[in-house]
Amino acid sequence: MEKKIAVILGDGIGPEVTNQSLKVLNAIAERFEHHFEYTYGLMGADAIDKTGSPLPDETLAICLESDAILFGAIGDPKYDNDPTAKVRPEQGLLKLRKSLGLFANIRPVATFPSLHHLSPLKSDRLEDVDFVVYRELTGGIYFGEKKVDAAYTEASDLCSYNKSEIERISHHAFKATQQRKKHLTLVDKANVLETSRLWRKVVQEVAKQYPDVQVDYLFVDNAAMQLIVNPKQFDVMLTENMFGDILSDEASVITGSLGMLPSASVGATTALFEPIHGSYPQAAGKDIANPVGSILSTAMLLDHLGLFTEASLVRDAVAWTLESKFVTKDIDPINYYFTSTIGDLVSEYVAGRL
Amino acid sequence: MEKKIAVILGDGIGPEVTNQSLKVLNAIAERFEHHFEYTYGLMGADAIDKTGSPLPDETLAICLESDAILFGAIGDPKYDNDPTAKVRPEQGLLKLRKSLGLFANIRPVATFPSLHHLSPLKSDRLEDVDFVVYRELTGGIYFGEKKVDAAYTEASDLCSYNKSEIERISHHAFKATQQRKKHLTLVDKANVLETSRLWRKVVQEVAKQYPDVQVDYLFVDNAAMQLIVNPKQFDVMLTENMFGDILSDEASVITGSLGMLPSASVGATTALFEPIHGSYPQAAGKDIANPVGSILSTAMLLDHLGLFTEASLVRDAVAWTLESKFVTKDIDPINYYFTSTIGDLVSEYVAGRL
Ligand SMILES: [Mg+2]
Ligand SMILES: [Mg+2]
Repeated sequence: MEKKIAVILGDGIGPEVTNQSLKVLNAIAERFEHHFEYTYGLMGADAIDKTGSPLPDETLAICLESDAILFGAIGDPKYDNDPTAKVRPEQGLLKLRKSLGLFANIRPVATFPSLHHLSPLKSDRLEDVDFVVYRELTGGIYFGEKKVDAAYTEASDLCSYNKSEIERISHHAFKATQQRKKHLTLVDKANVLETSRLWRKVVQEVAKQYPDVQVDYLFVDNAAMQLIVNPKQFDVMLTENMFGDILSDEASVITGSLGMLPSASVGATTALFEPIHGSYPQAAGKDIANPVGSILSTAMLLDHLGLFTEASLVRDAVAWTLESKFVTKDIDPINYYFTSTIGDLVSEYVAGRL
Repeated sequence: MEKKIAVILGDGIGPEVTNQSLKVLNAIAERFEHHFEYTYGLMGADAIDKTGSPLPDETLAICLESDAILFGAIGDPKYDNDPTAKVRPEQGLLKLRKSLGLFANIRPVATFPSLHHLSPLKSDRLEDVDFVVYRELTGGIYFGEKKVDAAYTEASDLCSYNKSEIERISHHAFKATQQRKKHLTLVDKANVLETSRLWRKVVQEVAKQYPDVQVDYLFVDNAAMQLIVNPKQFDVMLTENMFGDILSDEASVITGSLGMLPSASVGATTALFEPIHGSYPQAAGKDIANPVGSILSTAMLLDHLGLFTEASLVRDAVAWTLESKFVTKDIDPINYYFTSTIGDLVSEYVAGRL
């Protein structure tokens, strides 16, 4: 199979974790006789430094011509700490998401037995936790009309949704649920919010096309409790933008390590794959960052390309490194391995040489 | 001291837990030579059954004439399961809150060492957890303008706040912070929402009047993570209505037992004190419900009346029962004590006879 992959290394630890994913992709290509053509694009602080823009037109063009985008991380303290900065690294990612019409953010949350000790939750709550959050990414209150009065004594934000915005992400979520445990939970606040009632109505209609999927409904305040009390009850959680922001971040910490978590953003055009962690500038260049979030994002990318066996092998390789205690400093500050070593080990496993 | 207390027993386990609080109040009155005059009012399913209304005018009048309201719980499955029911028990509480102008909901969250095993969190995260959530209760998106189009393909909810709504709860929260660890955290989403930016501006202004209070700011998605990762960092958390709904429910489960948690709602007139648990109809009349949530609500009521020594004695009594393993069935399903026994033990301790 021939595929074009846009690669955006970005800032901080972005390049070094993404480079491990490229090693893994190369090992997959070698073993399964695929050809992946990489085209590099600039984004973030790196792009500002080199071109003046956080998302040069060329990067966007590369992304639109590719089959998938592998992205590292962006953000640099020299821009964060400068209130006069007119362009900021984060604007690059927001513009890219918007330009590509990425309307769904997908965040798998799974716990690894060998990492239970790092989680704030007790071990008995962590067994068999394996779910995915589908968060609507372009609608709702974050993008609604905003108002302030002249005296700045009143302010408002409008949360609005229409049927098609809800339908398109719902179809993605239902299809994914069919490949999993066939249990979808819509999180809303339908006892209070009109937008939530619309979500519930539309999801009920969409559900008719997926009769093998069991659907249930949870209010967002209850969901925030259930994620801690009994996270293994979830399979696919579907929700609107702000609820998804809050709940996916809450869900991420129960695994014990933000460095392990991948994500995908899908939509109208090319899909984007990135670890949920940030650019972590303090660790940049030290070969200590955890590449697993990026490598598991690469597994999601392979699934997206229809390469399910390949994706599954990458996940097996990651599970093997964890069981073998080949982990980075964030997981074990005493007996740790370098970023590049983890990348080598996963690649060698994938290539069948280990 | 002479004080008038409105008592609303309500539905389900409401009466039996509230009756334990009344025993405790009587013991306080005896020991400190106070006189508490109780006036009983109906609300909820009990009120619908007896009067046809979930909140009879007489109950509201009693509440307005009292110095504080002690309330149990409402809700009955015979109304929940009847979609044709025109009046519902919950309408009584909503109307009471509105009629009394209760604009701030206050939820203390503290962990007890002897209950750490019940929490989903590991013990090291639970030590020294002791914070209070101040949730705005009458504004924001839950009460904003709601719209749907005729075809029911679009819906919206408006979130709005004005300066005075933010100021009044902020003053309550800052005053409470001064009596605690002097650390207030405003939770918002000021990087995205206009209402959050207004909250931040108004809180910064109000903060000038409380120079001994250290103020910091947290985005709601980060707050949802921090509540699990490191809950002991919080002292007073101040936030708007919906964020408060989500975060206070999330916070409640880290203690390991919803039956232990009290709350207060304060505002323009008489303040209301109630456990956070519901009417739990399955347990009603069995003398097995946990009365601690109600008894700790009574401690909050005593604080509100300025009776700080008395409130503190009630809290000591509760801590003593827990350390002595005098607990209800929800805490220890094997070696448990009855609701009424816990009430007796706390009262005897308070009276100085234990
Ligand atoms: Mg977030
Ligand atoms: Mg709630």
